[in-house]
Amino acid sequence: MIKLDFSKQGGLIPCIVQEEETNEVLMLAYMNEESLEKTIETGLATYWSRSRNELWVKGETSGHVQHVSQILVDCDQDTLLIKVRQEGAACHTGKHSCFYRTIQGKEIL
Amino acid sequence: MIKLDFSKQGGLIPCIVQEEETNEVLMLAYMNEESLEKTIETGLATYWSRSRNELWVKGETSGHVQHVSQILVDCDQDTLLIKVRQEGAACHTGKHSCFYRTIQGKEIL
Repeated sequence: MIKLDFSKQGGLIPCIVQEEETNEVLMLAYMNEESLEKTIETGLATYWSRSRNELWVKGETSGHVQHVSQILVDCDQDTLLIKVRQEGAACHTGKHSCFYRTIQGKEIL
Repeated sequence: MIKLDFSKQGGLIPCIVQEEETNEVLMLAYMNEESLEKTIETGLATYWSRSRNELWVKGETSGHVQHVSQILVDCDQDTLLIKVRQEGAACHTGKHSCFYRTIQGKEIL
């Protein structure tokens, strides 16, 4: 296992979530060491919720879980990119991806 | 323009960089308000370097610039996704994407 640098953001590392089938970027979330271990162990994307301060199995309530097929690390070991199979929508708004608007506010999804 | 939340990371916002042609995720970088303005103004991806503490026009030295075609915002207004046309390699290692390894250390690019 590559040693990750969790030090830059107080024990958290940003994690880009990409849909394997479409290559669409779905969201950005944060992992601490425990959530990464859980993700590897269970195969379900598990993050650290910065607002609730707790481990968060994505889709635990909604059913919109993310099955993780690959975990990639960047050159600086301070960012993850995971490839997932998304059940339902990734975004809490019901949109498939959280990136459904341009910076001008125009909806693209 | 959508108002972004720069408060969560001390004036910085993470920015996922995706290659428009291939949908490959190239890197994650950080922008402050000034770098975002520069990016919009020049059409070249401009970040904030956390290590050098300065504005950083990606590829200014290497020529590996990123022509920005779209800037997307997530549901929480705290993350950007930019679509780019990448000149040369995005990664300083010479790899096309910074995400060239699995977490087990296996090179995929």
